[in-house]
Amino acid sequence: MQFSSSLLENAVNEFARLPGIGKKTALRLVLHLLKQDPKEVGQFSEVIARMRSEIKFCHRCFNVADGDICSICANSLRKQEVICVVETIRDVIAIESTQQYHGTYHILNGVISPLDGIGPDQLNISSLIHRIEKEKTEELIFALNPNIQGDTTIYYIQKKLQPVSIRITTIARGIAFGGELEYADEMTLARSLQNRLPIEKYVTQ
Amino acid sequence: MQFSSSLLENAVNEFARLPGIGKKTALRLVLHLLKQDPKEVGQFSEVIARMRSEIKFCHRCFNVADGDICSICANSLRKQEVICVVETIRDVIAIESTQQYHGTYHILNGVISPLDGIGPDQLNISSLIHRIEKEKTEELIFALNPNIQGDTTIYYIQKKLQPVSIRITTIARGIAFGGELEYADEMTLARSLQNRLPIEKYVTQ
Repeated sequence: MQFSSSLLENAVNEFARLPGIGKKTALRLVLHLLKQDPKEVGQFSEVIARMRSEIKFCHRCFNVADGDICSICANSLRKQEVICVVETIRDVIAIESTQQYHGTYHILNGVISPLDGIGPDQLNISSLIHRIEKEKTEELIFALNPNIQGDTTIYYIQKKLQPVSIRITTIARGIAFGGELEYADEMTLARSLQNRLPIEKYVTQ
Repeated sequence: MQFSSSLLENAVNEFARLPGIGKKTALRLVLHLLKQDPKEVGQFSEVIARMRSEIKFCHRCFNVADGDICSICANSLRKQEVICVVETIRDVIAIESTQQYHGTYHILNGVISPLDGIGPDQLNISSLIHRIEKEKTEELIFALNPNIQGDTTIYYIQKKLQPVSIRITTIARGIAFGGELEYADEMTLARSLQNRLPIEKYVTQ
């Protein structure tokens, strides 16, 4: 692509470095911004810069936060003695949007994956163990993606917590709402049979 | 979507205002930036802001430019007496990437479209007429999209130029390279029959 302006070219190149955005999309976005009011584009640019430079990570759960503690940890209406363990911030947002969970979170920042060179020390695991011991947590809910790495991580943390008296659960695996039995893989189907629910429980949920 | 940080939320909202970018994609982009070095994100933000505030439009052809005149108009190696009329900057980039055109451009900034309330006065048409008269242009090549609005615009400008002695052409319409005859619409097929080329001309092109 040839540009008649280096300012335009630089802007397109910056956008094209974002994941999933190619040169053509980048050009479309930049030409869109070019049509906007300079004030609005200034605001766009400032909000992005401020986000990166001022955002903090919660000292307790590693969620993004405006201060030292995130709004979920600071909320006294939430059950502070229940921790939901997730991989990423995106999972927190997904669970929060269900409006069904009222405890706190702990973001591991990934899962144990020896093939990718990610061991327990690269994750927020020791801080989780420390937090559980200090806060006398009552329940730990694992909400990790259902794969080998997730299961390995659950196994590792659960082993570490054996001396501690705490209820450990994991979110249910099964056929997704709207899914079809015939397309489910064997493992999911097998697990959802093993963990079948009494029908009364299912109906009232 | 619920966020535990207003800085994050604002950044996601700004990205989600871009065309074709929804909230989920915006979140993915913002979380990507969050993982980058603050310096790089600062650069991203600065390049975007500078692009909008410092970019100029060429006084002669309305292309984007770093100064008063764009690099194409300023290039004495290009045929300054040939003007290619296009709708948008994107068309200039598309034609430039063929490396087959060595004249200049004139960007109309759209086409005549009464249904959308766009008349000749909203477009860079009078400046084009003025430019042709002043510069004694030899050839005007229309490279507008092949549709009713494009054809209307060509007809309007051509009428305006009747007193002026100038060669007016339009890029060829026809079956695209790699296209299939049976899927071509009747109008394209009819035009490509009407404007058939002597075979020697086709082979040497």
